[in-house]
Amino acid sequence: MKVTDLDTLRAFFARAPFLVDLGIEAVAAEPGRVTAALTLAPRHLQHTGQVHAGVMATLADHAMGSAAQMQAPEGHWALTAELKTSLLRPAVGRRLVCVAWVLKAGRTLSFTEAELHAEGEGGAPRVLVMKASATMALVRQA
Amino acid sequence: MKVTDLDTLRAFFARAPFLVDLGIEAVAAEPGRVTAALTLAPRHLQHTGQVHAGVMATLADHAMGSAAQMQAPEGHWALTAELKTSLLRPAVGRRLVCVAWVLKAGRTLSFTEAELHAEGEGGAPRVLVMKASATMALVRQA
Amino acid sequence: MKVTDLDTLRAFFARAPFLVDLGIEAVAAEPGRVTAALTLAPRHLQHTGQVHAGVMATLADHAMGSAAQMQAPEGHWALTAELKTSLLRPAVGRRLVCVAWVLKAGRTLSFTEAELHAEGEGGAPRVLVMKASATMALVRQA
Amino acid sequence: MKVTDLDTLRAFFARAPFLVDLGIEAVAAEPGRVTAALTLAPRHLQHTGQVHAGVMATLADHAMGSAAQMQAPEGHWALTAELKTSLLRPAVGRRLVCVAWVLKAGRTLSFTEAELHAEGEGGAPRVLVMKASATMALVRQA
Repeated sequence: MKVTDLDTLRAFFARAPFLVDLGIEAVAAEPGRVTAALTLAPRHLQHTGQVHAGVMATLADHAMGSAAQMQAPEGHWALTAELKTSLLRPAVGRRLVCVAWVLKAGRTLSFTEAELHAEGEGGAPRVLVMKASATMALVRQA
Repeated sequence: MKVTDLDTLRAFFARAPFLVDLGIEAVAAEPGRVTAALTLAPRHLQHTGQVHAGVMATLADHAMGSAAQMQAPEGHWALTAELKTSLLRPAVGRRLVCVAWVLKAGRTLSFTEAELHAEGEGGAPRVLVMKASATMALVRQA
Repeated sequence: MKVTDLDTLRAFFARAPFLVDLGIEAVAAEPGRVTAALTLAPRHLQHTGQVHAGVMATLADHAMGSAAQMQAPEGHWALTAELKTSLLRPAVGRRLVCVAWVLKAGRTLSFTEAELHAEGEGGAPRVLVMKASATMALVRQA
Repeated sequence: MKVTDLDTLRAFFARAPFLVDLGIEAVAAEPGRVTAALTLAPRHLQHTGQVHAGVMATLADHAMGSAAQMQAPEGHWALTAELKTSLLRPAVGRRLVCVAWVLKAGRTLSFTEAELHAEGEGGAPRVLVMKASATMALVRQA
């Protein structure tokens, strides 16, 4: 399948059971740039009452993979080879919003980055809670 | 709470809703060394039929955090500051097993690593699917 | 010593023998933002004729450390705890220019990023060759 | 050129001007496993009197690249796509010794790791000062 716009991005997210299970939604798609979001629930938290790092890593990873997928050669998957996440602040709030983009697209590798903000209730300002980077391998689909 | 053995490790995992939600279990605990596992279900997969990188990142992150927690100063949480995961092979199978250990424990930072193997059906050999490293910040509990 | 402007940044660079040895120069300093550069010579290259990854890691690491140093508490060093570099393109040319900034300054940790461009001869456009991120530990000076 | 043993590893190091300039030496070579060392001099230090992170990143990067090169397909270079280093302790002493190995060799990517120890004077014990991991891209030689 080819990811080219918000409709195809939604269809792409719908094919990943773990994304559906967590409740992650596609929000916007431009060439090589993806926005995804998650409305937080108690099950997304860790022992400190903050969002679990794994929830944020999942959101960032999938958004970055999708951004790379948009620019991958026909018939190839963008699969995570390596992912780094920096957790800048504790993540609390109502919703997480992640913007991911391609830094450098190639034929066999794609370098991507993502920023993840937490949104609170009412008019509270968004807070940058994570910065991520990933090396995506572009692999021929089986 | 203090994590010192398998019972307290289980109690520690039970306090993290996202761990419980995914089905991640504590398997073994030695000082600064933790084993955790996850029996795989369809909801853990991504669009390619393999385990989602976010599931593996969650397992590795929590096992590493727990290993650091065992050696953290009294009254401190080991919280992930930075996490890197390398995805060596597609993860398929029946169960994931993660071993995590402390490379260097300090007063404000703890460096940790983890290996994650996939186990197949029957007598199939375990396969190393992920290697991870994380910098844990040791932060006074509020 | 306190790094507050280009003069104190230059003095800070001058105290690091490896920076002086390589020929890395301070170019600009704003609060939490540092620019540094290196005029390339044959000794900076690797077996492929491109700049060695270690040269670029050194430039990015020191620029990020300096940016963190500008915002470190009095009497503390910003020391690299963890450094990741992504090599986007082969680095060739006449000069490397690195801009580094603080993403999030804290009391014990500072998160930083850097971009590194290669400049060619004449009017050739600058090329982004590396993106880096680092976790800096803020450690009381001995 | 093909790196198969200590003699060809030495020849490979000799072709990288930055390695020669720093004084890094090949010490041992087994299939997919390389040991390299550096006798420390004042020019390798930073402002705190410790070895500069860039020196250690260079040593680890080149040792990992060489280990990957030993298992790269004929006619390909192993080039660093992504490098992470964790600085566990301040590096001081007389000599750095780095052991690097291939975690997973593939056709287009090779995953590698390295440990870096500092050796002091006389009978002082070796100290683990850095752990590194890198994703190497296997690229057809021009």
